[in-house]
Formats: sequence, C-alpha cells, structure tokens
Amino acid sequence: MHHLTRLTRREAMRTMITGSLAATLLDFTQGGQVMSEGAQQSGSTTPQLPLAYRGEHQVKPLPFDAAKLKGLSEKLISSHHQNNYSGAVRRLNQIQQQIGSLPKDAAPYQMGSLKREELIATNSMIQHEFYFGNLGGDGKASGTIVDLLKTQYGTFEAWEHDFRLIGMSLAGGSGWVILNYNLRENTVHNYWAWDHTHSLAWGVPLLVMDMYEHSYHMDYGANARGYIDAFFQNINWDEVNRRAEAARSRK
Amino acid sequence: MHHLTRLTRREAMRTMITGSLAATLLDFTQGGQVMSEGAQQSGSTTPQLPLAYRGEHQVKPLPFDAAKLKGLSEKLISSHHQNNYSGAVRRLNQIQQQIGSLPKDAAPYQMGSLKREELIATNSMIQHEFYFGNLGGDGKASGTIVDLLKTQYGTFEAWEHDFRLIGMSLAGGSGWVILNYNLRENTVHNYWAWDHTHSLAWGVPLLVMDMYEHSYHMDYGANARGYIDAFFQNINWDEVNRRAEAARSRK
Amino acid sequence: MHHLTRLTRREAMRTMITGSLAATLLDFTQGGQVMSEGAQQSGSTTPQLPLAYRGEHQVKPLPFDAAKLKGLSEKLISSHHQNNYSGAVRRLNQIQQQIGSLPKDAAPYQMGSLKREELIATNSMIQHEFYFGNLGGDGKASGTIVDLLKTQYGTFEAWEHDFRLIGMSLAGGSGWVILNYNLRENTVHNYWAWDHTHSLAWGVPLLVMDMYEHSYHMDYGANARGYIDAFFQNINWDEVNRRAEAARSRK
Amino acid sequence: MHHLTRLTRREAMRTMITGSLAATLLDFTQGGQVMSEGAQQSGSTTPQLPLAYRGEHQVKPLPFDAAKLKGLSEKLISSHHQNNYSGAVRRLNQIQQQIGSLPKDAAPYQMGSLKREELIATNSMIQHEFYFGNLGGDGKASGTIVDLLKTQYGTFEAWEHDFRLIGMSLAGGSGWVILNYNLRENTVHNYWAWDHTHSLAWGVPLLVMDMYEHSYHMDYGANARGYIDAFFQNINWDEVNRRAEAARSRK
Repeated sequence: MHHLTRLTRREAMRTMITGSLAATLLDFTQGGQVMSEGAQQSGSTTPQLPLAYRGEHQVKPLPFDAAKLKGLSEKLISSHHQNNYSGAVRRLNQIQQQIGSLPKDAAPYQMGSLKREELIATNSMIQHEFYFGNLGGDGKASGTIVDLLKTQYGTFEAWEHDFRLIGMSLAGGSGWVILNYNLRENTVHNYWAWDHTHSLAWGVPLLVMDMYEHSYHMDYGANARGYIDAFFQNINWDEVNRRAEAARSRK
Repeated sequence: MHHLTRLTRREAMRTMITGSLAATLLDFTQGGQVMSEGAQQSGSTTPQLPLAYRGEHQVKPLPFDAAKLKGLSEKLISSHHQNNYSGAVRRLNQIQQQIGSLPKDAAPYQMGSLKREELIATNSMIQHEFYFGNLGGDGKASGTIVDLLKTQYGTFEAWEHDFRLIGMSLAGGSGWVILNYNLRENTVHNYWAWDHTHSLAWGVPLLVMDMYEHSYHMDYGANARGYIDAFFQNINWDEVNRRAEAARSRK
Repeated sequence: MHHLTRLTRREAMRTMITGSLAATLLDFTQGGQVMSEGAQQSGSTTPQLPLAYRGEHQVKPLPFDAAKLKGLSEKLISSHHQNNYSGAVRRLNQIQQQIGSLPKDAAPYQMGSLKREELIATNSMIQHEFYFGNLGGDGKASGTIVDLLKTQYGTFEAWEHDFRLIGMSLAGGSGWVILNYNLRENTVHNYWAWDHTHSLAWGVPLLVMDMYEHSYHMDYGANARGYIDAFFQNINWDEVNRRAEAARSRK
Repeated sequence: MHHLTRLTRREAMRTMITGSLAATLLDFTQGGQVMSEGAQQSGSTTPQLPLAYRGEHQVKPLPFDAAKLKGLSEKLISSHHQNNYSGAVRRLNQIQQQIGSLPKDAAPYQMGSLKREELIATNSMIQHEFYFGNLGGDGKASGTIVDLLKTQYGTFEAWEHDFRLIGMSLAGGSGWVILNYNLRENTVHNYWAWDHTHSLAWGVPLLVMDMYEHSYHMDYGANARGYIDAFFQNINWDEVNRRAEAARSRK
C-alpha cells in the first residue's frame, strides 16, 4: 500500500473499492440490496466482477396460488417462499460478490468457507425451485414416472414407502428427499440429503420434498408425518413427468 | 413371531431369510460377495430385490495406463483405483442390498443412516469415474471449455487460480473440486465439496479433482500444491470438452 | 448356519435372538419400547448387552413450568421437550442396542453409520438438557459469568452481539450456539454448531441456544431474531453461573 | 463513509485499518505471521482485539521422539506434527483475528462461515494434542482404564474390537475415533467423528486415534488396518490413565 502516497484520497478510495477490498465495503445489511459505497457516493460504475461472481440470480415467483394447497396454509407457503427461498437467492448473490472480491492472496480457508456458503445457497435455491415446482397438483400419479418407479421399486407403493421413510428419518431436523434421475445409471432413485450441501453428484431432480422444519412446523408442529401426507396430496405429477421425460431424452 | 410354532424349522428360516430379516443374514465379509445363507444352503434362489436395491454396479477400468502419468506414480494411481474407487463400488452394492432388505417397519433412523452411506458410496463412485476420466491427457487446454471459462471468469488464469485455491482449502483433509456445468444457469462454475456427500444439486461434472489425501499423500506427503501441479499437467482436456459439449447440448 | 439342523427350533430361535442377529428382532415401532421377541415369548431373559450398549438413558423432566416462559408458548416448549428431546433419548436407546447387537463381522460402514446416529442422538440429548436447564430465569446476567465474558470479549454487549450473530447465521436451518468453557484454554468462548454432531472437543457447555427451527417456528415463523430476543429474556443466569464455577474448579 | 472528506488520507487509512476493515488488510500469506499493513507501515500498535479473538494459541512440541515409534516412520510423524497439527494452530490464530475484525454489521453468513472454520481448527488442534499425547508408549494396557473399559464393554477385547471397527469405518477418508469420558453418564464410551467438527458435546477425550489419511498413507497406503495395528502398539496407556483419573475426579 506504499503507493498510496502517490494517489489522491479519492483515487485511493476507488482503488480499494474496485480492487481486492471491495468485499468489506459491500453493504450486507439492507435486505439483499448490495451496492458498494463508492458507487453510491459518486454515481460512477465500479468495474464489473466476472460473470462467475456477479451474483445476479433472480427469485422465481410461486408457480401456483399459495392459498390453494390442501393442508398447507397460505401463511406457511408464503413465508417459505419469501423468507427461506428468496433469502437464499439474495444471500447467494452477496456470497458470490464477496468471493469475487477476495484478494488474490486470500488464505485458502477464506475461499473454502465462502465456497461452502455458496454451495449451501445455490442448492437451497435450486431445490426450493424444484420443490415449489412440483407442488400445486392434484396428487394423482400417472404416466411415465409411474412406469419408471415400478421398474425400479416393483410397485408404486414400495417406492412411496421408501420415499416417505427417508422423509421421516429427517423429521425434527433438516434436509431433503429427492427422487433423482441418476444420469450414470439412467434410472430413477430416491436420495437422502441431510442439508442443502448434499446431493447426487450427477442427476436431475424429479420430485423434491423439503424436510427443513420451516416446511411444516407452522402448520404441523412436530408432526412430520402429517406434513408428508399433505405434501403427497399436492404433488404436481404432470411437472414430474415433464422433468422425467426431459432427463431421459438427454442421455 | 408366535406363528413360528406352526411352521417347520426350514419354513421358518426361509420366511426370515426371504422376508424382512434378510439383511442380517447377508455376509458382508467376503470382499463384496454378498449372498444370503439361505441361498448358499439350499441352492434355491431367494426372491430378487427390486432393481433399485439390487446393487449390481460395476467397476470401470482405468481409461489410461497408470504408469504413464506425469508426477503421479503408478503405485498411487493403482491403489487409488483398486482400493478407494473400487471399494466404493463394492460397498455401494452391499449398502443397497441391505436397504432393500430392511424390514417394512424399520425405524426411520435405520433408513436414514443407510441412505447416507448410499449417497457417500454413490458419489464416490461417480466422482472417481469423472476424475480418472479427466486424467491421462497432456494438460493443454483449448476449445469449447476455454471459451466457457473465459466467459465466466474473465481469463483462463483467473479460473485456474480459483480452482486451485478451492483445492488448497481442502488440503490436509478431504473433498473434491468440481468444475460443473450448472444446469440452472447454463454456465460453468467451480464448486467446493468437503466430502463425497457434497455436490451441486443440478449439474454435470466437467473437470473433477480429488482432494482426499489418498490422491496424493503417497507421492507428495502434505504437499498438496505439488499434487495440484501434477494434476494440471495430466488433465485430459479433450474429455472435458466432450463433457461440456454434451452438457450444453442438453439444455 | 449349517449347524441349525442339529438344533431344535426353539434352540435355533434362541441362538439367533441372543446372538448376533438380535438387532433385527428388536421392535422399533412401538414408541421406544424395545424388547426382543424372544423375551416376549418365553418370559426368559436374554443375555444382557454390555453396559456400553444397553441403552438405558432416561428422559429428564422440564426444570421449569412450560407455561411460564416469556414469549415462548407452552405448546412450543412442551412439543420441543416431548417430541424432539424425548425422541432423541428414546432413539439413542434403540441405536445403542442395535450397535450392541451387530454381528462381530459387521461391515465397517454398518458400524460407522450407527455410530453417527448415536452421536447425533447423544448430543441432541445432552444439548437439549443444557438448553432447557438454562431457561426459566429472569434474563438478568450477573456474577462470575459476566466477569468471564468481559475478560474474553471486552464487554458483555460485545459477547452478546457475537452470540446472537452466530445464532442468526443458523436461522432458517438447524444448529446450536454454545457458550463453552474451553478446557484447553481455561476460558469461555462461543461456538457454532450446524447440527447435533458438532461440538467443541473438550469443553463444558455453559449457555446453550437451540437454533433448530422446532425451537421457534411454531411461535415465530421465520423470525429467528424474535426468538433470540425471547431466549435472552428467559435465560437462567444462576444456572449458567453454577456451570461456570463447576467447570472452572475442575482445572 | 461520507465523513472521510473530513479526514486526512493517513487518518482515513488508520480508521479503516484499526476499525472494522482490518480483516482484509491482514497478510495471510506468510506462514501464520499476521500483521496489519498499518502496523507494518507506521510501527504504531493497532488496538488489541479482545482476548476471545486475539489468536495467540501456541504449538506444543511432540511429547516423544518421532524416530522411536514402532511401525510409524519419523517422516510421517514429523510431517503430521509440522504440517497438519501446527498448520491448524496457525490457521486458528488467523481465523480468530479475522472474526475479531468483522464489521459490526457483518452478514450472518460471514460470521457463521468463519465460526465453522474456527471449530475445525480448534478441534484439530485439540484432538491432535490428545493424539500425539497418547502415543509414545509400549501399548500395554493396565490400571484404571482397563477396569473402566471392562465395566462398559464386558472385556477389553470387546472394547478394542469396537474401537477398531469404528476406525475401519473411516478408512479411506477422514475422522477420529475417540474414547471419551462422557461427563453426563460418568462412563467411558467410544465415539465416531467424520471430521474435525464432530465431537461428544460434554466429555473428556481419553484415547484419540487420528483416521485422516495423513496419519498413515505415507507409510501404509490404503492399508488402514496396518496403521491401526501400529497405533495400538504405541499407545501410552499411562497417559490415558492420567486423563481418565483426572476426568473421573471432576464429577
């Protein structure tokens, strides 16, 4: 920093803001509105971060009317979408901007700790979008997915028992149950996830059930089984079929 | 089990072996050779598990000559393939058979604990296959992947710095660094994984670097940086390009 | 098992029940009531498991009137105690009995997967007992703990800011914030825990705040900050002081 | 930052350096030597961080001659101590200083991500000290600990089988096996840890076995069983007895 003596104060500030120090000048406190102080003051644009860390992910609206689900209240669904899902998207944007602003000589643990946060927020965003995307239906399964499930699990009921039991193993805690299209095997299979970081390494989510307690506690308290029943009554199997057919045609 | 008094001993054994108790009768000790005692005794076949839990995954051979890598010894690579990768495949088969043999009234934690083991073994299998698959090359990047990386990270060097720093954050421990094709964003991005359970929820691995210490300790001791240098010298960028083009065309 | 032909059916059953197969005969379905079928049938006692895996942990009652907390409803506290805490104790007993019944030649992953479940249930039991134990007070800190906190954090307010911010980092997910007495340093320090498995390796919990969503969602929805405010109003600092003084005198 | 116009450049720099922005000015690149640019420039001392985040942990030397263990090479042990253990201590100091320098309005995820790194480094430090502390002996168990183990596990051999099987479940990956003095139960019990973050929430480590691959890969490759054999031949049971007696007297 010895070269600072050759810069004006304004130039010094800009150097820092646009260089490796930008992260600390970001304002993380205003509900996801992230802008550098420098940009706020001068109106000038700071040099863009590379796309990888520009953090411009957008929240997707609920694909159904939150007031119309069976056994899951509008208040629960709206809070889930506005706080947990949307919060993850906003946080992801902040995290990526902070990673993009790390000094070149950052300690490895600084990078690792933020990349973990990025993975958490990224998967939370993705899984929530699949989750909301496979709700809003009438819960009646038919078509491609039923065939695929029967092929792998013998009967639809055997698959459902398997999926529900994984869900119950996460009751009282956190996690996801994910029916994935496994791209190595070219088959469908249920997977367990203890938190947002967990996922099949090479697959396409077909049916995603959120088991974080924010998915049900407001309506069901500790009664996870009641929530799972309600979840099944609202599955949009048409959407699951669309996903399955798209995944299958990719191989 | 009070009804046992109405069965012959042989019938009782068969009921248990072919029914919900089969799991404990599996012989997990003989290098992945899993067969129920009942089948061994009688020669009769036990009813097949459903495909989902039949556990018939196969080990894939190394796609290159283990003696020909630069800076990574044949002994290291062979041990990695035979013990760590192949062991995961064998274990996955055992785990899936055990899940398939759980009693219908298994406690949820029994299911959850085995599904976690299944996820670990599944992802270890998948990531190792991508890892070995992207070794054996000359380390010279060109083509599609270079364009994709420049678009996201500004320069190839900026991407490489990012990828290596994630790797160093895992030095002395475990994990993977994965350049993924993110299917939500339709872009390439580096991801951090602390262990086998971690992964982007919706993506295609393009370039995978194993950071478990079994990937380098035999040759490099604690010198993870030396290992990463060697890894980069052996990257098969043609394979990475094939993966990237296949992933891109899927969207 | 070829020797079965030399046994009567009753003897065969007893061999299995009292031997390595006992685990599968446990009844995990009746609310924690675990008894082998053999014992139920004959009235005879099965050989005791060693103490390490006998699973005889007892639920401790709430140390305060669940109806008397400020800002935390009786319904929330009772559900938390009856379902989440008591459920962990019951599950721990089942898990330990299952571990104690593993065959001698169990696959390592079988042992590991159950030991993880044991750690989860053990720490859930322990932390919940500390958590309920440090509630029911008037929220006014004084005495030894205040001195200890000032020594480490400068001011009580600085410590509280630190503790609350860790809590907020767990909002919308799971985990604990634990003010520990660190036995290596002989000092007090705040620790972050993402789930039940996480803990300082050598310490005594002094003040424990549950951040699993079952701690607040019923009353506060996604408003974790509101819950943390309520938590602070109910801290039993006398109990925290007792713990701190006991921990300090041990060194 | 609008008040910057009223400060000289030097004052502005000092404000930032000694205030909430200090973290980014720390030099993390010189082997644990952490000093702010401000202090380097002016020779003046920056205001001290509170003790909680001053990061002054010291490396403890090996308590035995690294050349004298049976079946564990001097090179392996020295590397383990110098790189993995000492690296954790140095990193812990950096992490704590960075936490202590977080702005007051840091985003919760920034705090959480660093507190996780702190837990990893803290437990790595602690467990490594217990690990090295219980090596250097003749491997012959006697005294208090044998009595305690027999009480819980029936026989010493049963305990050893249990401890080794947990170790094998971590082979090829990471983790610890820890014989703990459980302070809730006032008993000894084996615990599984998948990585540094895992630990019994209220206990005193008595015998600690490192299962990270850096503990054995240099000497044993994938042969974790061979390493465990060597570990047992070098256990310092006198030290384990000292720990057990100290732990027991605390209750």
